[in-house]
Amino acid sequence: MLVNGKEMRSLWYEDDCLKLIDQRKLPAKFEIFVAKNEEDVAYAIKEMVVRGAPAIGCAAAYGIAMAKNKEKAAELISNTRPTAHDLFHAIDYMLKKIEQGEDAIKAADAYVETIIKKCKKIGEYGEKLIPKNARILTHCNAGALATVDHGTALSPIRMAKDKNIFVWVDETRPRLQGLLTAWELEQEGIEYAIIADNAAGYFIRKGEVDLIIVGADRIAKNYDVANKIGTYEKAVLAKENEIPFYVAAPLSTFDNNIKNGDEIEIEERSEKEVMNIYTWKPKKARNPAFDITPAKYITGIITEEGIIKLADN
Amino acid sequence: MLVNGKEMRSLWYEDDCLKLIDQRKLPAKFEIFVAKNEEDVAYAIKEMVVRGAPAIGCAAAYGIAMAKNKEKAAELISNTRPTAHDLFHAIDYMLKKIEQGEDAIKAADAYVETIIKKCKKIGEYGEKLIPKNARILTHCNAGALATVDHGTALSPIRMAKDKNIFVWVDETRPRLQGLLTAWELEQEGIEYAIIADNAAGYFIRKGEVDLIIVGADRIAKNYDVANKIGTYEKAVLAKENEIPFYVAAPLSTFDNNIKNGDEIEIEERSEKEVMNIYTWKPKKARNPAFDITPAKYITGIITEEGIIKLADN
Repeated sequence: MLVNGKEMRSLWYEDDCLKLIDQRKLPAKFEIFVAKNEEDVAYAIKEMVVRGAPAIGCAAAYGIAMAKNKEKAAELISNTRPTAHDLFHAIDYMLKKIEQGEDAIKAADAYVETIIKKCKKIGEYGEKLIPKNARILTHCNAGALATVDHGTALSPIRMAKDKNIFVWVDETRPRLQGLLTAWELEQEGIEYAIIADNAAGYFIRKGEVDLIIVGADRIAKNYDVANKIGTYEKAVLAKENEIPFYVAAPLSTFDNNIKNGDEIEIEERSEKEVMNIYTWKPKKARNPAFDITPAKYITGIITEEGIIKLADN
Repeated sequence: MLVNGKEMRSLWYEDDCLKLIDQRKLPAKFEIFVAKNEEDVAYAIKEMVVRGAPAIGCAAAYGIAMAKNKEKAAELISNTRPTAHDLFHAIDYMLKKIEQGEDAIKAADAYVETIIKKCKKIGEYGEKLIPKNARILTHCNAGALATVDHGTALSPIRMAKDKNIFVWVDETRPRLQGLLTAWELEQEGIEYAIIADNAAGYFIRKGEVDLIIVGADRIAKNYDVANKIGTYEKAVLAKENEIPFYVAAPLSTFDNNIKNGDEIEIEERSEKEVMNIYTWKPKKARNPAFDITPAKYITGIITEEGIIKLADN
């Protein structure tokens, strides 16, 4: 991804540390968070210094690699966030490679390179779905920040840059990850407007959205998708208004042990995340971080091996 | 409505002035805004010191009453906000009464008393639609603040207080009118939780919402409803999940000169309203304040004269 015109990744290993663009501070401040050990990595995942399923997996891989006690590190990091499948996928991958005698840091490096290649392939497949002059809606940030480079949902959009596209960016309350998407698009010089999540339906119904592309945190065997809270609302609106709704995700997001979406554990985060912009504090807030979009609302899932065709919209 | 245990209204005429609870400050601060003339009233409507279609109408009535030049005042106040029908209804009512020789302040007083009575009737009709232990979702604030007393959507909820109800309150970005609803419910001692607008679909799909009640800003001849941005999204979700979706509004909200919702002018407000919680400012935001919910998604409209039955959900 471009940051001030230079190619960059959202995390990288350097000087025996994992360095991460601090996504809690972005886009207001650009700061690098340095994780020196598996505890720092666990903190970075839990507190959302790093976020986005594929990027969480990559950070976890380095966390395992840096740890003296791999089994304990695996347990520590497994307990940070429950919903994203890539996290568990990356930990399993690392433990297997280490057992096979591979150098742990090299194994983590290789894992990250594979993710980046997969995201590039997702971009190549997905770009073909974007017509000239398309107005694309996206929710949350499934960009390079969420995947180390390229992005999942944003990878096709980056590759369609020269097609005179325009991106509607849901702000994505409560944590406003839409700002991360806006920041990435601005770095790439792609036209966009940010909107309150409430306004997406208005523009969809007016015919001002041609297609929707989002990422995914975990995909069940029946192709139900867990993704950022609010995704389900957009998928239902897409179906109702007969526009395509695509999910972009590497195969590491697919969890064949989960039969359908309702078996996926949904993380409920602190109510403070909802209330922190309020001066007056209500007595109670609820804050589920993800929701389930049933496969019947999804036109297709864009993977590194091609597009899985699902619903008819 | 109750404010710290005492009965109160959201606006009233006193000492030759219109006094209004300042809804820009609420619920963080409880302050009274004093409007001394029609210009102050126009400012109060435009800047949302007072908001909610019926309350805007009542404020407008006093604005006309206080003005020396009624025609000029009517023009000034007409140009504050375009979407709510009550505003124009109130102005027409006042000009007619004044032409008939009535005392202007008394006519405004009478207008307000009528609105309050209508809201009470809406509560009586609507309360019958709320089963025991119901979990009700509402969007924006269609409470006493928006209607001088009782509310439209909140009037049935207030009257169902002893049915062990629970209210899901959409925070309603960008202006967070959900906080006004949370504040009203807390004053009344009704259980609630505030949620990001994104989370409504999640709780609806999980079966944790039994019905939805919202207010309205303007209702077309075919019963399409203009209401706060985000209303359309909730209505589609209600239909998809087969739960009732009710609109509560006095007949003054109905505009028979408008054939269908797409003829209703939608106010687009400053992008600053979206961005003011952002530290980093995106290049562009869009901020439509209302959307259109087609009648086919609406189970019924609760009016002061009974319920207009529409869709089957």
